[in-house]
Amino acid sequence: MCPHRLVLEHVTSRWGVLVLIQLLDRPHRFSELRRAIGRVSEKMLTQTLQTLERDGLVHRDAKPVIPPRVDYSLTGLGREAAEQVRALAQWTQQRMDDVLSARRAYDEAREIQSRAS
Amino acid sequence: MCPHRLVLEHVTSRWGVLVLIQLLDRPHRFSELRRAIGRVSEKMLTQTLQTLERDGLVHRDAKPVIPPRVDYSLTGLGREAAEQVRALAQWTQQRMDDVLSARRAYDEAREIQSRAS
Repeated sequence: MCPHRLVLEHVTSRWGVLVLIQLLDRPHRFSELRRAIGRVSEKMLTQTLQTLERDGLVHRDAKPVIPPRVDYSLTGLGREAAEQVRALAQWTQQRMDDVLSARRAYDEAREIQSRAS
Repeated sequence: MCPHRLVLEHVTSRWGVLVLIQLLDRPHRFSELRRAIGRVSEKMLTQTLQTLERDGLVHRDAKPVIPPRVDYSLTGLGREAAEQVRALAQWTQQRMDDVLSARRAYDEAREIQSRAS
């Protein structure tokens, strides 16, 4: 597999998409991100953020304060990825009706075929 | 999971991306697609095409000729998806150097940290 395919997988992964879109708004602390995304385990969110940070898409800023405070934000590179991923995600939402009617037509045709054979 | 997330997963799946991009050029027969994509098993390509057909993104045209001839092409909806997916895939290729240097910096910082602790 070409190495850039892995980056594509990172930015289009289930949680990767949601993290990138969420961070387009503004930087978030870990707990804020977790609340905003919902249903993501602490472990999965940590892993997703580490992967995106390692790819240079997300910046992790650990402030030396008490209690510790860590902010996550998009890098310039991350913003470029996030904008494209958001556009694609919005497109799938906008076109969901077309997809659903295509699926109904497909399933009906299959059913007619299987009855005929 | 919201239903549109599944569509996003279909169009960004390993083989989904390659099928969509390949079909942007022109319609392909199954064997042409398989050759163009490479390293994909017959079963996986069949499954990918069925998923994309069911979502209304790919049109399957079985011509009643001998020997049988089946052409796959993009629908209007499929073309919209394919153009966005191609742009995102091209972006990951163009930015791969930035990603690789981010990874090197990340791994080096980690190594220094682990030596210090």
